[in-house]
Amino acid sequence: MTTPFDPATLRYNEAGLIPAIAQDATDGTVLMLAWMNAEAVAATLATGRVTYWSRSRGELWRKGDTSGHIQRLVEMRLDCDRDALLVLVEQTGPACHTGRRSCFYTAVHAGTEVEIIAPPAGETA
Amino acid sequence: MTTPFDPATLRYNEAGLIPAIAQDATDGTVLMLAWMNAEAVAATLATGRVTYWSRSRGELWRKGDTSGHIQRLVEMRLDCDRDALLVLVEQTGPACHTGRRSCFYTAVHAGTEVEIIAPPAGETA
Repeated sequence: MTTPFDPATLRYNEAGLIPAIAQDATDGTVLMLAWMNAEAVAATLATGRVTYWSRSRGELWRKGDTSGHIQRLVEMRLDCDRDALLVLVEQTGPACHTGRRSCFYTAVHAGTEVEIIAPPAGETA
Repeated sequence: MTTPFDPATLRYNEAGLIPAIAQDATDGTVLMLAWMNAEAVAATLATGRVTYWSRSRGELWRKGDTSGHIQRLVEMRLDCDRDALLVLVEQTGPACHTGRRSCFYTAVHAGTEVEIIAPPAGETA
């Protein structure tokens, strides 16, 4: 079954946003979770550059415009409830603002937080 | 750096929820995205059975209690902003209520929705 895709048909929250998981298309690493509005979804598909909505800045956030750590869209997927997105990406440089490859660098082991990915040399936290 | 983990230190939304990505610990497939409250986070860690908050039913949802399609927790990770979780799981049966392994079975290809994982035999949609 195929249907023309319209970003307006996704289910957004009360702020008009939908969570988007970015996953490395090559090895499956989950890199980050961020948010998109309908405009960001459309921009991502139109340009091939993954674009989120920055909740802190209140504006479209084309990933990598400042850092150079861009995400090229390989494939966008939606879930059965149409209220979550999975974007498979080709990531340039680290996805995390701390310089780590993934934002999910902290694990809970036996009730304790453990950093399982070290920060890059010369950086802390 | 290690710190005792307290579910109350995560950043929940105005409804007291945090998005949780479930990923197959074995092969990295992203299975679903659901939501946890602090109680669900604590229950998941305490029992090793991944437990969400069902927004539609308004109650704790220990995945698989009805379907048998349980998720054993392999590792819980949090992101740099402490406002998203990644749970690595050992999934029994399909994660999706449609019978598919992953909820992310629809992709957008050239502006068209395409189901990239077929429904199980005997089921539709």
